[in-house]
Amino acid sequence: MPNRAFTFTAIGEVQSCFKEKFGIPRQPGLAPSARARILIYPEFAREEAFAGIEGCSHLWLQFVFHANDATWRPKVRPPRLGGNKTLGVFATRSPNRPNPIGLSVVTFLGLTKDDAGFFVEIGGVDFLDGTPILDIKPYVPYADAIFDARNTVAPEAPQLLPVLFSSEAAEFCVGENQRHASKSPLENLIREVLQQDPRPQYQAVDSGRIYGMRLWNLNVRWCYRENAELTGTEIYVMTIAPVAD
Amino acid sequence: MPNRAFTFTAIGEVQSCFKEKFGIPRQPGLAPSARARILIYPEFAREEAFAGIEGCSHLWLQFVFHANDATWRPKVRPPRLGGNKTLGVFATRSPNRPNPIGLSVVTFLGLTKDDAGFFVEIGGVDFLDGTPILDIKPYVPYADAIFDARNTVAPEAPQLLPVLFSSEAAEFCVGENQRHASKSPLENLIREVLQQDPRPQYQAVDSGRIYGMRLWNLNVRWCYRENAELTGTEIYVMTIAPVAD
Repeated sequence: MPNRAFTFTAIGEVQSCFKEKFGIPRQPGLAPSARARILIYPEFAREEAFAGIEGCSHLWLQFVFHANDATWRPKVRPPRLGGNKTLGVFATRSPNRPNPIGLSVVTFLGLTKDDAGFFVEIGGVDFLDGTPILDIKPYVPYADAIFDARNTVAPEAPQLLPVLFSSEAAEFCVGENQRHASKSPLENLIREVLQQDPRPQYQAVDSGRIYGMRLWNLNVRWCYRENAELTGTEIYVMTIAPVAD
Repeated sequence: MPNRAFTFTAIGEVQSCFKEKFGIPRQPGLAPSARARILIYPEFAREEAFAGIEGCSHLWLQFVFHANDATWRPKVRPPRLGGNKTLGVFATRSPNRPNPIGLSVVTFLGLTKDDAGFFVEIGGVDFLDGTPILDIKPYVPYADAIFDARNTVAPEAPQLLPVLFSSEAAEFCVGENQRHASKSPLENLIREVLQQDPRPQYQAVDSGRIYGMRLWNLNVRWCYRENAELTGTEIYVMTIAPVAD
């Protein structure tokens, strides 16, 4: 019988804007302002191993679903399908796989080196903070971009909701952008993440309920409102505040 | 320190037309007639785990580079670049990675079940026979097909050479197609594989040299010729014969 067990070692770990699972986009690329950096562990932090990577606009990351709930289940209920339709796990990108290895394409933003280590800077991520990275590969457009591919299970990106900011939240963003001029504007990150509607799809709008998620070191709180003019639901960002440590 | 070592178990193994490394296309999709099947090991061969997969035209396979030479090297010499230009391994899809995990997109052709087991039938493969499969995921066009991605290291598919068959080789194909009516026509498979020119690019044409590769249970032998009318090199398939076991 051939060898069936293989042991791999993480080459690095992600430092991500997403500090908890709730709110993470369900695929990469949906929130271009969602930045992260991969800390490459010292034994792999050799610049020569990355020579030529600047010619790549996008990278594939193979990573480990390291949250505790990534247990193998033959059937899963994808949240996008309303939580009441089941699919085989191999027809989905769910973490509940026999081998909890994830696959995401991200934008490559550069290599950086500072006192904290050697980093690969990336954008459009859907990684939980601390995600172990097994491999980094270039996106090869002629092989990977299949224009006529069809997937009836996940045919299109999620519908987007309008996102409005309270004046308090908008002012907080202005200050934050001035303090961190090198980052994407905070309101872009919040809009891109929330407009996909992080709620499980089976939850009805409850205008009394306040939701929250953490982005970097900030707590973002929002609610849902019915907007008569738009004849639909809108997201209203109420407050943004630093996390009390 | 977070956990850095992860052990995974193959969910199946590939039964491929490619029985040796020489001649395997350098990316998947380049030889659509290159078929394979994944034997799913009994503990994962549960039809419910594949429910919905029929809605996917393409699948991602995460696999192990199981040939002995997949040792980690920070710099590699991709054969397509003439073998004399080095690149960092993370700028390539070379097997010489810290974690020898491969990534290929293939066409999904169906699920089958027979006395030999439960199989996922696939096409356009670049797998060596016996390749261990770690995971099967759906291709999600809205996230995975990035139309404006750029890769200056591997900007386009390899140039193709014309492939001509000797009358002996052409006759063999006719007979083989009649015996195996369910497979792709043999001459299509041979043309798609050879037209990419399996030689390392630094080898000059030597019209006296005969090359060979194994496809399924067949030995294919060919040589290179300079064709004055085409003002270029052409591939001439000399013989096709069953492997003597």
